[in-house]
Amino acid sequence: MTDRPGIVITGGSGRMGQMLIRTVLDSDKARLVGVVERSGHAWVGQDVGVAMGGAAIGVNVTDDALEAFSKAQAVIDFTAPEATLEFAALAAQARAVHVIGTTGMSEAQIAQLEPAARHAAIVRAGNMSLGVNLLVQLTKKVAAALDDDFDIEVIEAHHHHKVDAPSGTALMLGEAAAEGRGVTLSDVSDSGRDGIIGARKRGDIGFSAIRGGDIVGEHDVLFAAAGERIVLRHMATDRAIFARGALKAALWGQDKAPGQYDMVDVLGL
Amino acid sequence: MTDRPGIVITGGSGRMGQMLIRTVLDSDKARLVGVVERSGHAWVGQDVGVAMGGAAIGVNVTDDALEAFSKAQAVIDFTAPEATLEFAALAAQARAVHVIGTTGMSEAQIAQLEPAARHAAIVRAGNMSLGVNLLVQLTKKVAAALDDDFDIEVIEAHHHHKVDAPSGTALMLGEAAAEGRGVTLSDVSDSGRDGIIGARKRGDIGFSAIRGGDIVGEHDVLFAAAGERIVLRHMATDRAIFARGALKAALWGQDKAPGQYDMVDVLGL
Amino acid sequence: MTDRPGIVITGGSGRMGQMLIRTVLDSDKARLVGVVERSGHAWVGQDVGVAMGGAAIGVNVTDDALEAFSKAQAVIDFTAPEATLEFAALAAQARAVHVIGTTGMSEAQIAQLEPAARHAAIVRAGNMSLGVNLLVQLTKKVAAALDDDFDIEVIEAHHHHKVDAPSGTALMLGEAAAEGRGVTLSDVSDSGRDGIIGARKRGDIGFSAIRGGDIVGEHDVLFAAAGERIVLRHMATDRAIFARGALKAALWGQDKAPGQYDMVDVLGL
Amino acid sequence: MTDRPGIVITGGSGRMGQMLIRTVLDSDKARLVGVVERSGHAWVGQDVGVAMGGAAIGVNVTDDALEAFSKAQAVIDFTAPEATLEFAALAAQARAVHVIGTTGMSEAQIAQLEPAARHAAIVRAGNMSLGVNLLVQLTKKVAAALDDDFDIEVIEAHHHHKVDAPSGTALMLGEAAAEGRGVTLSDVSDSGRDGIIGARKRGDIGFSAIRGGDIVGEHDVLFAAAGERIVLRHMATDRAIFARGALKAALWGQDKAPGQYDMVDVLGL
Repeated sequence: MTDRPGIVITGGSGRMGQMLIRTVLDSDKARLVGVVERSGHAWVGQDVGVAMGGAAIGVNVTDDALEAFSKAQAVIDFTAPEATLEFAALAAQARAVHVIGTTGMSEAQIAQLEPAARHAAIVRAGNMSLGVNLLVQLTKKVAAALDDDFDIEVIEAHHHHKVDAPSGTALMLGEAAAEGRGVTLSDVSDSGRDGIIGARKRGDIGFSAIRGGDIVGEHDVLFAAAGERIVLRHMATDRAIFARGALKAALWGQDKAPGQYDMVDVLGL
Repeated sequence: MTDRPGIVITGGSGRMGQMLIRTVLDSDKARLVGVVERSGHAWVGQDVGVAMGGAAIGVNVTDDALEAFSKAQAVIDFTAPEATLEFAALAAQARAVHVIGTTGMSEAQIAQLEPAARHAAIVRAGNMSLGVNLLVQLTKKVAAALDDDFDIEVIEAHHHHKVDAPSGTALMLGEAAAEGRGVTLSDVSDSGRDGIIGARKRGDIGFSAIRGGDIVGEHDVLFAAAGERIVLRHMATDRAIFARGALKAALWGQDKAPGQYDMVDVLGL
Repeated sequence: MTDRPGIVITGGSGRMGQMLIRTVLDSDKARLVGVVERSGHAWVGQDVGVAMGGAAIGVNVTDDALEAFSKAQAVIDFTAPEATLEFAALAAQARAVHVIGTTGMSEAQIAQLEPAARHAAIVRAGNMSLGVNLLVQLTKKVAAALDDDFDIEVIEAHHHHKVDAPSGTALMLGEAAAEGRGVTLSDVSDSGRDGIIGARKRGDIGFSAIRGGDIVGEHDVLFAAAGERIVLRHMATDRAIFARGALKAALWGQDKAPGQYDMVDVLGL
Repeated sequence: MTDRPGIVITGGSGRMGQMLIRTVLDSDKARLVGVVERSGHAWVGQDVGVAMGGAAIGVNVTDDALEAFSKAQAVIDFTAPEATLEFAALAAQARAVHVIGTTGMSEAQIAQLEPAARHAAIVRAGNMSLGVNLLVQLTKKVAAALDDDFDIEVIEAHHHHKVDAPSGTALMLGEAAAEGRGVTLSDVSDSGRDGIIGARKRGDIGFSAIRGGDIVGEHDVLFAAAGERIVLRHMATDRAIFARGALKAALWGQDKAPGQYDMVDVLGL
């Protein structure tokens, strides 16, 4: 028990935060040692179990991230870019592995992680699932193997609350396809088709975004030529896979030198 | 043999024209009695079989539509809106059934068919396949049965030559869904998603257009709610289904009174 | 509050039982008034909330079904055939609506529900989801509209724990297709293809069973002809839809005369 | 023109034979120099173009395979195992590349190709399409990357004339999955599910066969775990892809040493 790494979850009251808490509590390879919420949040000061509507578990929610991190071996963080930059500095100070599932970080913000990465391991990924990271690799490989007789399309479907299109994961897949082909995605990207758009340009990479119900996340990469098609598909049906991936990253990072890593490193793909 | 209706194909040299010629030649319920091409086209004056690269069949290609129509019981026409309006007048004069698969006709152009329809039966449809017309009806029915807890999305895929999005058939399906729900499609239509689009609006009908390879035509109507989805899908894998549908319409029209009809009438759906 | 019907859940400790309890607790249209487990089960005598690992809610688990039923307006029951027959007699005695989601009941067992149905409303369905029941009706309609140029195949996918193939819902869909065609399913059913099976027999209805992961339940009805296909698909991604359907049935049954009903009645399809 | 390799097609009157003839005639990289049919067949002695219902092309159909082969640089052969063994000996004698798309050859028959392969290059594949051969490789790679938390299922769909199940290509995919996992397919293969089959055995590789309409050939390899799935899919929509793959193999083989090759060699995957 004592050698199970202690984990802190940031933004614990959110949908993903609660999923992460449950995943750590259910694991026999890690211990939950802290949950962080912003100052003034109703959960601060409460027992985590009680806050989630169950029995007490002896871990309190705090707004003092540094104190929480200093008792932990890893921090799992699916919050927002600004908060994540602050947490990175504090995790570095505490020498805790920082697993970042936060989306929407700009290039500039990602660059600001560098100082923290000199002191502690950071694992950051736009999508923590094993399947999606494998799909990214397959997409690159297939795009490299096929010439542009094969038209590439990335089709994604998500729940009706999602505000951006295409999804971050769809863009990752598009980047992988472009890299496999030796082109720059921004030169060939084709999204938002509507009206008289003309014939598809050879070499383009198209994107379609389907929105409906509570679809967790589905991504197809289509390679369509005359007479045949290949489709590489990933379906996520339970957000728990992202939490399990993040926990796997936290455990994997325990013996790693400071630096920035991604899920391809974690999964050994 | 003598009681098999004689058919004329317009625009016979095109991809769809040749498909129609072959379909009539292969049928034991109809005879090919004429093929029309525009004046100056290389095929005019040639035997149809020879023009298509085979043996002579004893039917010549002509640019005199009226003369051809006057020997026929039906005209099958997948050309362009302007040509179709002229053919309608001539088919009416010849009292031949006019089967119109031409796409892209405006409301005004459709209205101009009315005088012709006083003299001969016209069967017009955006899509001549049995399956698509059935799908349109199912879509209306399902949209009426489900409330807007179910988000409706129409997803279509076509070959890379197609210049418009969404496809005419996708719009037909969207219209059917809107009608089933008692709303107007233009009020709820959502296509061309790209960028920060915000959460999906309840009641919207979304459209996505996939383009690649030589896909003949595939349409999905998705009804997505929390925890469950229904999909109504049609896949066309051979353009011959449109030619067979058109021939079916030509035969069906033989004993019909003058007027305008569509494939729902023909198929008895 | 007082006019919200009181609901009892049988078999409350199972996966489906707990889902039903949560669904009733989350609803503002019904009250949870009892949970039944078999004598000797660890949950008996405990508060339901505590038994489920949360806070107390003031409702105890009991093994005295009749006493629980007599305080309720409806009983929701996803247990096993023998238990369901007993519960039917007790619910009839208590004049409570009996919603039966139990699967695997034989024709003989279903017949034994008749005496109970003389005293109280019984709603029984092999699948309580709105979508599946709609799919059954669409299947019958499409099978009636298309002739046997269209080959019918039912393809289902479920989690790896499922012990029977094809699924009960797949068989319901096959029955609906056969009924639409005016044939008897047992005469045309074709499942378990393996080895040198010969060409597909015209008019057959084929079944395929895919098993993997935690797939909740997916059903495709394929109608495949030369050059085109129609697919009617249902995907269940959350067992809660079955619980919500059962609760809907319980509420619907409140003002109904004694007798046997199914989800088509409840959904007004 | 003179340096375009001369090709002979065996079994030229069949559906695949005619497809091969058309593919060679349409190519600017090869010349059709002969078509072989069995003695007594109506086509023997006729001009190939005429036999196919078109204009003469100056190449006659013959039943003397050796004479035809001796004028050719390659033979493309989608016939039957016994015929293919004879053709292999004759092609070796003529030092022509022998491209074999014949299916259903036993291990013993394949071994009998060895003497011929000492004199000429033989390219043999169960499926000549680029996409399927790529899919086989991806399947092996993904099966190796994922542990048996992921259940593997191979699902194929073909036209209603197909007599065997699962398809040869499905078995190739199953073999690739088994190889990736380091197991023997016959130990873990699970096909023909029907009735009370019990829970799926961990590590099994399942097969399902869908039959309907004129489906050319579709193959899914599903990897399903808790909360996520990966699908690798190939769809063939036009038999021409097999003919184009065979012609590609014939051209590729021109400068190869005698020996046995497959499409992975040809495609450089």
